[in-house]
Amino acid sequence: MAMRVLVVNGPNLNLLGQREPDVYGAGTLADAEQRCAAVAGELDCELTWVQSNREGDLVDAVQGAAGSADALIVNAAGYTHTSVALRDALAAVALPFVEVHVSNVFARDAFRHHSYLSDLASGVIVGCGIQGYELALRRLADLA
Amino acid sequence: MAMRVLVVNGPNLNLLGQREPDVYGAGTLADAEQRCAAVAGELDCELTWVQSNREGDLVDAVQGAAGSADALIVNAAGYTHTSVALRDALAAVALPFVEVHVSNVFARDAFRHHSYLSDLASGVIVGCGIQGYELALRRLADLA
Amino acid sequence: MAMRVLVVNGPNLNLLGQREPDVYGAGTLADAEQRCAAVAGELDCELTWVQSNREGDLVDAVQGAAGSADALIVNAAGYTHTSVALRDALAAVALPFVEVHVSNVFARDAFRHHSYLSDLASGVIVGCGIQGYELALRRLADLA
Amino acid sequence: MAMRVLVVNGPNLNLLGQREPDVYGAGTLADAEQRCAAVAGELDCELTWVQSNREGDLVDAVQGAAGSADALIVNAAGYTHTSVALRDALAAVALPFVEVHVSNVFARDAFRHHSYLSDLASGVIVGCGIQGYELALRRLADLA
Amino acid sequence: MAMRVLVVNGPNLNLLGQREPDVYGAGTLADAEQRCAAVAGELDCELTWVQSNREGDLVDAVQGAAGSADALIVNAAGYTHTSVALRDALAAVALPFVEVHVSNVFARDAFRHHSYLSDLASGVIVGCGIQGYELALRRLADLA
Amino acid sequence: MAMRVLVVNGPNLNLLGQREPDVYGAGTLADAEQRCAAVAGELDCELTWVQSNREGDLVDAVQGAAGSADALIVNAAGYTHTSVALRDALAAVALPFVEVHVSNVFARDAFRHHSYLSDLASGVIVGCGIQGYELALRRLADLA
Amino acid sequence: MAMRVLVVNGPNLNLLGQREPDVYGAGTLADAEQRCAAVAGELDCELTWVQSNREGDLVDAVQGAAGSADALIVNAAGYTHTSVALRDALAAVALPFVEVHVSNVFARDAFRHHSYLSDLASGVIVGCGIQGYELALRRLADLA
Amino acid sequence: MAMRVLVVNGPNLNLLGQREPDVYGAGTLADAEQRCAAVAGELDCELTWVQSNREGDLVDAVQGAAGSADALIVNAAGYTHTSVALRDALAAVALPFVEVHVSNVFARDAFRHHSYLSDLASGVIVGCGIQGYELALRRLADLA
Amino acid sequence: MAMRVLVVNGPNLNLLGQREPDVYGAGTLADAEQRCAAVAGELDCELTWVQSNREGDLVDAVQGAAGSADALIVNAAGYTHTSVALRDALAAVALPFVEVHVSNVFARDAFRHHSYLSDLASGVIVGCGIQGYELALRRLADLA
Amino acid sequence: MAMRVLVVNGPNLNLLGQREPDVYGAGTLADAEQRCAAVAGELDCELTWVQSNREGDLVDAVQGAAGSADALIVNAAGYTHTSVALRDALAAVALPFVEVHVSNVFARDAFRHHSYLSDLASGVIVGCGIQGYELALRRLADLA
Amino acid sequence: MAMRVLVVNGPNLNLLGQREPDVYGAGTLADAEQRCAAVAGELDCELTWVQSNREGDLVDAVQGAAGSADALIVNAAGYTHTSVALRDALAAVALPFVEVHVSNVFARDAFRHHSYLSDLASGVIVGCGIQGYELALRRLADLA
Amino acid sequence: MAMRVLVVNGPNLNLLGQREPDVYGAGTLADAEQRCAAVAGELDCELTWVQSNREGDLVDAVQGAAGSADALIVNAAGYTHTSVALRDALAAVALPFVEVHVSNVFARDAFRHHSYLSDLASGVIVGCGIQGYELALRRLADLA
Repeated sequence: MAMRVLVVNGPNLNLLGQREPDVYGAGTLADAEQRCAAVAGELDCELTWVQSNREGDLVDAVQGAAGSADALIVNAAGYTHTSVALRDALAAVALPFVEVHVSNVFARDAFRHHSYLSDLASGVIVGCGIQGYELALRRLADLA
Repeated sequence: MAMRVLVVNGPNLNLLGQREPDVYGAGTLADAEQRCAAVAGELDCELTWVQSNREGDLVDAVQGAAGSADALIVNAAGYTHTSVALRDALAAVALPFVEVHVSNVFARDAFRHHSYLSDLASGVIVGCGIQGYELALRRLADLA
Repeated sequence: MAMRVLVVNGPNLNLLGQREPDVYGAGTLADAEQRCAAVAGELDCELTWVQSNREGDLVDAVQGAAGSADALIVNAAGYTHTSVALRDALAAVALPFVEVHVSNVFARDAFRHHSYLSDLASGVIVGCGIQGYELALRRLADLA
Repeated sequence: MAMRVLVVNGPNLNLLGQREPDVYGAGTLADAEQRCAAVAGELDCELTWVQSNREGDLVDAVQGAAGSADALIVNAAGYTHTSVALRDALAAVALPFVEVHVSNVFARDAFRHHSYLSDLASGVIVGCGIQGYELALRRLADLA
Repeated sequence: MAMRVLVVNGPNLNLLGQREPDVYGAGTLADAEQRCAAVAGELDCELTWVQSNREGDLVDAVQGAAGSADALIVNAAGYTHTSVALRDALAAVALPFVEVHVSNVFARDAFRHHSYLSDLASGVIVGCGIQGYELALRRLADLA
Repeated sequence: MAMRVLVVNGPNLNLLGQREPDVYGAGTLADAEQRCAAVAGELDCELTWVQSNREGDLVDAVQGAAGSADALIVNAAGYTHTSVALRDALAAVALPFVEVHVSNVFARDAFRHHSYLSDLASGVIVGCGIQGYELALRRLADLA
Repeated sequence: MAMRVLVVNGPNLNLLGQREPDVYGAGTLADAEQRCAAVAGELDCELTWVQSNREGDLVDAVQGAAGSADALIVNAAGYTHTSVALRDALAAVALPFVEVHVSNVFARDAFRHHSYLSDLASGVIVGCGIQGYELALRRLADLA
Repeated sequence: MAMRVLVVNGPNLNLLGQREPDVYGAGTLADAEQRCAAVAGELDCELTWVQSNREGDLVDAVQGAAGSADALIVNAAGYTHTSVALRDALAAVALPFVEVHVSNVFARDAFRHHSYLSDLASGVIVGCGIQGYELALRRLADLA
Repeated sequence: MAMRVLVVNGPNLNLLGQREPDVYGAGTLADAEQRCAAVAGELDCELTWVQSNREGDLVDAVQGAAGSADALIVNAAGYTHTSVALRDALAAVALPFVEVHVSNVFARDAFRHHSYLSDLASGVIVGCGIQGYELALRRLADLA
Repeated sequence: MAMRVLVVNGPNLNLLGQREPDVYGAGTLADAEQRCAAVAGELDCELTWVQSNREGDLVDAVQGAAGSADALIVNAAGYTHTSVALRDALAAVALPFVEVHVSNVFARDAFRHHSYLSDLASGVIVGCGIQGYELALRRLADLA
Repeated sequence: MAMRVLVVNGPNLNLLGQREPDVYGAGTLADAEQRCAAVAGELDCELTWVQSNREGDLVDAVQGAAGSADALIVNAAGYTHTSVALRDALAAVALPFVEVHVSNVFARDAFRHHSYLSDLASGVIVGCGIQGYELALRRLADLA
Repeated sequence: MAMRVLVVNGPNLNLLGQREPDVYGAGTLADAEQRCAAVAGELDCELTWVQSNREGDLVDAVQGAAGSADALIVNAAGYTHTSVALRDALAAVALPFVEVHVSNVFARDAFRHHSYLSDLASGVIVGCGIQGYELALRRLADLA
């Protein structure tokens, strides 16, 4: 049976491709989705994508994954560095997840070097652009 | 006249009882509600319970307490450690409140040792499980 | 052509005038709006005011300014000190903005001394009460 | 069989009621004792109260609880923030205990925000005045 | 009667306009003076401008304001971050003052993020170029 | 009526004069007592001297001063840097006291630079050898 | 023409598979090599693997990559957290590289949370076991 | 032969008595001078008083003491916490000096808790009001 | 002549063997005494053992060693990390001493990593169980 | 069967006896070897000694102990404070080891107070000169 | 044409040779001047020397270098560690300068390890005694 | 007799001239050698140059200088900031040495601001390019 993967995207990722392209690259979230779709077949995965600028929506999405998904890919964007609520949701549902960051957060502001999610993750993929989503998917498929 | 108490619950507390039961115990929020109801009569209190995963909803709930409640019990969960907005709302309405944490936050991650709310509270009750809500209610009744 | 300015107000600012008046003064947000209106004509500006207690709403509002506004005035209140998401939205839209705080944050709690927004701003105006909005408007007009 | 509870009180608590009454309230330790006595019957508990200004006396008292008590209520006052010896005694006897502070230590000096005891406790009750002892007793009865 | 305002300028501000123009802009102190003069009439203010590279001169100037001025505008430049003496002088004369910084100090070196003056000020205006002096004047007029 | 002054001496001060004489000097506590006696007459003071190596004894002594003394001179020696209990006792009795250190604690280990007592004191006299007690007495006489 | 990739492995990675298997997993470096070989063909890459327990050997290997390789995969193991020399070598050769860690360093000792290499990397892949090497290779192929 | 003592006073001490009288008291520098004069005779000392708001003047004064004074009393006021130059001057002339602070700096802002001078001093006298100068003089006489 | 060694044991060491045996092992203080006795003959040492839960008793014991002992073995247990008074006593008597910890303090809470005694010791022996006392004795015999 | 012990010595220990003798004493590594040999017979141990100035050599030596030794004595000298690689090697071979330092590192530079090895050790022996090796051997024999 | 070099000397350097000679050596500023003069001819430089104990004078001197000098040698002495004003002056004139310290500041107090000037300098020469001025001159000549 | 100077160069300095030329300049190590040779004759010095990427080789080289050299010039490059072993070697041989850095480390990453070597050096020369070696040589010649 196909592995069901929920891809959770945080604030401002709806602007990917337009937003600070020298930091985040020119690929959009739709491009990421398309790229992953190509691989998903090969890996027998089904992907569902959500994006929200609201911390609470992301908490709801993660909670909702219990029962409807087998694993998550999480790019919490700005909430990565500030959201204990999101961390707690991930701990509560206790599904494997891979954390993704499109840009290299370690080459940016010091406050981006800490993540509330990383120590709970089954993998952290940083600075690989939108390819990061594909790599995360491969990691999840390998874990299954 | 009965004291009106608003009980404000933060993110992931809807999962109480299912979520990391070795940390949070097996009691649900409904159990807490029931337990408090038993005591509320004796103490002549009326309780209203709200829960949300959204920081802004919690701010709204606290603001709404002005006029409709005499005191609050606040378990802000993950927002305890990150929300200046919630702190400011509590300072703004200037009602007495007791802060509750179901788990012993002092025996967990360092980032859980600091609360943005505690110094404004009329009591802080930590690590007493869902009984904490009942103890908070008793504290508020005693203050009245 | 008139400069279009979006004025973004964060949590608890709907209570301005009532809330801790010895800290924030007696002027309401409506007073601020009225005061700015008087100056806006003289400076050939059009103002739109939004207020929300929700971080995600503020992110949306800032994102929405792209195309519909030429500049922003931002009083993020409690989110000033905790929101990377809001910072990222401001960086993404790349419009000039002035940061305003009604109270003197430097004379208050240490956690209010740091803002995630200031280094991106075209001006920071602190502790000038609701007049701060008017001064911010003058700054933006001068920049144009 | 009744639960035997030892109530251990640290330095300067003999002055409760006289000492800085705007910080600690007007209730004395005798008032606390009386208040708990009223509840102890209902909860089937037997309470023994000790108070000392000496760290070593408190260590002795805690050690002595092994065999003679089933649980402790500990208000270590000033030693809360400085005594590893007391912490070690509590770990050694391995009895459940609830930590109590009459005043809201989180609204006072920074050095009062850290306790050497809290992470070992079965509950921490802060800033509820002398009612804190009663709430601690209820917590212990609930644990039994 | 006109409000008398002393404008105190610290080290290197005599070079404004020549000095690192991409940081401080092209406007000189004379330009600032001229710009304020235009507004001073409208606001019924009289301005006196002093500039010195010497911390002690600035202390003297602030002390001298007692009796001869009703309020101050203070741009202490480099002394902002290092001078307790200047802070003490401002506290001693106890006149309202607005702190001004031409550049956005929050977007520069970390040591420029702290000011010894801000918590005493009736307003802090940062990163508005030489217009900052005019805005400070408007703030003082509004306070009067 | 003569001012009654209790002089409280902490651990190892019984060894004054023998103990590390290049740090503490050759004068003994008896010498200090004698030296103060000479001045006490002139200042109309009565002095009582206590010394103990036990933190709890010092807390008791301070508590006992309430009613029997008008002021204190406190050299808490090693407990200066570690005793919240002693600080709380001094706050509880609320008598004026002068803090004395025989050696220059600021020229020694970093952990000796902080005192839990100083901010409550009516004077702090450091590094004046056993003359420090006499100077403290003069201070108290002047305050009366 | 095939992309030439040098895979640089640091201290104790020769023990992979034997060493703390609950932390690092059961796969050996040879397994990693084999796994990558399978993908290398598909991606038109040629891989060379080196491992050393010596910081200086790793510096030499990185320097030697200039001219003989087009990109690197670097798992510096323990030197990740302590080697400025290795960082400088990577900066000197100025080839794209992806940093890999087999275990989730963010869930381990605090000193493993900082890397001297990450901000220079074209990708950081953490906690994906030996699959991390394969993912790194895919990243490099995508960059080419 | 009489001991010659130079009394060096730093910025804003010319305002003593007028300046924040609840912090510094009502006594002026002239009062301090007069008070010391009374004691100077008894102790066979000759005092010279200087006050300046300029750090460099104070450095000059200290340097000038070599040859013309036997000891110093130094109240560096705001420069206490910021002046390495003054410290170096005191080390250079190598005369005994006593540091005086009129107010209790330990009960004020954290930045007033550190002095660049104290570890070089032959005594530090804090929070004794203008009597501090007299006590310092007694200390110096005792040292001679 | 035999070397006289005083063995000073701090709080909760009377519970050795019962207390947290997975941390401290199963050996009691009596076992340690017996083990040392066997070696003492061979090394021509006479041992005296004291244990107290009171910081002041330990200070007294150390002071009393002057004249009656030639060296000390000190296991200050919880006071190791908090007692400046004990450190000062050891510095005052100026006898050689070896510091012993039964458990490996470096593998436990961070607050156990610092000792107020170690830099004065003639040896520090950590984590060797009750054998540590014997090793300390051998060290002292070697020093003599 | 005899316990096989590998004694691993780090950088500059080849100079023991010549190097800063007031810090490290006059005994050489050969003296240490001889001293241990005398005890090894009695304890039924076989010792192998290695010394290297190269971090990688030490990692190799520790790795090589797997299979050829039953326990280690490790004096990593300067690498104690900087080598995660060595720590990882010790964790990988998972043999019991005792850490030795000839000098009292706690009485020297602050950077010598932290060891990357201590929390993994079965004993830490500091400041006992070259006797430390003998004491470590006794500890290992006792553990076996 | 000869390179014109202004040599700026800060507080207490007028005492060089007399002041703490074991720290600063026996050479005077005049000796330094003479030594440089010998080299200046060879390097075709013209030197002007200034010294002041006043921060503001040094700022003036640096500002005055614009137009009259081609480069600076700066020994700001105590102001090195505290003067943002001097840093700003150097940034404003934008001339190449070499920073000199006669003593080895890295072997002295921690507060001397940071300089506000170094990152702007074209060279930093520390602990070479008065020869440092000559070396700085050679550096400037080499840069030209 | 000629002074024998060993010039010790650390990791990546073999790439000087090619490596990040905007940071390190275009001069190679051979250029530096040639430049020094020209001066060495004049100063009657004999120079030996070593370079290694291995920390242990550098330790060996420094140890080997005992007997074969009179002084050292040390550019430890990346090991400057991480090598206690190298520091200890320099302390062990106890020869005078000058520390050199080609680039201005104070204008680069924060981790380059601290050196383990500087406080032991007879001079520190930073940011003077390859001329730094020549200046170091002049310093050593002057010391002799």
